[in-house]
Amino acid sequence: MKPRAFVFDAYGTLFDVHSVVVRAANLPGDLQALSALWRQKQLEYTWLRSLMERYQDFWDVTEAALRAAVTQLKIQASDAELHGLMQAYLRPSAFPDVTKALDALQGAPLAILSNGSPKMLASAVQHNSLTSYFAEIISVDRVRTYKPSPRVYALAPEVLGFPPEEILFVSSNSWDVAGAKAFGYKVCWCNRSQGHMEHLGFSADLTMSRLDQIPDCL
Amino acid sequence: MKPRAFVFDAYGTLFDVHSVVVRAANLPGDLQALSALWRQKQLEYTWLRSLMERYQDFWDVTEAALRAAVTQLKIQASDAELHGLMQAYLRPSAFPDVTKALDALQGAPLAILSNGSPKMLASAVQHNSLTSYFAEIISVDRVRTYKPSPRVYALAPEVLGFPPEEILFVSSNSWDVAGAKAFGYKVCWCNRSQGHMEHLGFSADLTMSRLDQIPDCL
Repeated sequence: MKPRAFVFDAYGTLFDVHSVVVRAANLPGDLQALSALWRQKQLEYTWLRSLMERYQDFWDVTEAALRAAVTQLKIQASDAELHGLMQAYLRPSAFPDVTKALDALQGAPLAILSNGSPKMLASAVQHNSLTSYFAEIISVDRVRTYKPSPRVYALAPEVLGFPPEEILFVSSNSWDVAGAKAFGYKVCWCNRSQGHMEHLGFSADLTMSRLDQIPDCL
Repeated sequence: MKPRAFVFDAYGTLFDVHSVVVRAANLPGDLQALSALWRQKQLEYTWLRSLMERYQDFWDVTEAALRAAVTQLKIQASDAELHGLMQAYLRPSAFPDVTKALDALQGAPLAILSNGSPKMLASAVQHNSLTSYFAEIISVDRVRTYKPSPRVYALAPEVLGFPPEEILFVSSNSWDVAGAKAFGYKVCWCNRSQGHMEHLGFSADLTMSRLDQIPDCL
């Protein structure tokens, strides 16, 4: 059955988080390692703060993760350089397949459901000229916890007015795929990096390597 | 004020998780990388499953993490070899400073509060001849979620009958330190690997590199 709506994860799925560090290329040190560790710490801190019941929004978590990553990697970065990296996080690049995919799917309502703060999401969408595609941009900030909490996944069905099994949830993050599937969505894993599915007891209904392959799989 | 009781984390604090892989040294591949990734996946799966509200006990999580780690590292391991590694997890080595520390502290009640399943904890304690030291061995399995949930940290004060601020919680895992501090314990970070504190908004009351330094810091 064709989905009644499409809900996209943002970071890693629509937007390339590793495009942020590339833009700040005047920093010394291994920028690829910095980008990977920044992302890992960012996710860990969302999971840990959610479990601790000490929510802090994604902007603050992202800055804390950046500071942890530069400390661990012994990268000398001034406050101005860290500020520059944080500002670049407001303008991540969309992956090249995004516009083509959204063009093909826009007969149904399209939405974003993301860890990002409302300000970060609005900025990333606008920077990539994607505003007109989305009926809803939903931030976890409404429930003050992070993915993969079912309280987060419950937001899109509530806002869109369709049951989760009639919505295709699309994510490149395999732990997010598992969380969405556990909640009850039909789930597409956009496996951009040819990774392995996390062993969390749930798997995707559809798997592909680029978003513009979705229409052919429905 | 001297603590009324001491509560220890188990894996990484009393027991060396990396001693497990060393014992299975007939596997091909980078065993240090396997041990690090196994541990990382093990922790990630505890956080993710807790947030997903899909608890699975630590034995099953540990096996899933092992399978994920060997897959990701492309290590060829038979089911018998994986079974051998899992069995070795029942007999991790205690760090060399543990007995001396427990000897010095045993005037007050000593307890373990760990992610480990009751069977895993009983086995690890017994294998290292530590059974007589502990008044209580408390597993997260009682509340079917994982650290750093406050529901886990609440178990030790309940069982021991002291308020958390009168208990010294001891962990080598800095995210566990942050969780315990957020809950309300007095917290000691046994920073064995000279790591950096996670940027989670909470820090330890005491920091040292070996457990047998605790008595001198009280």
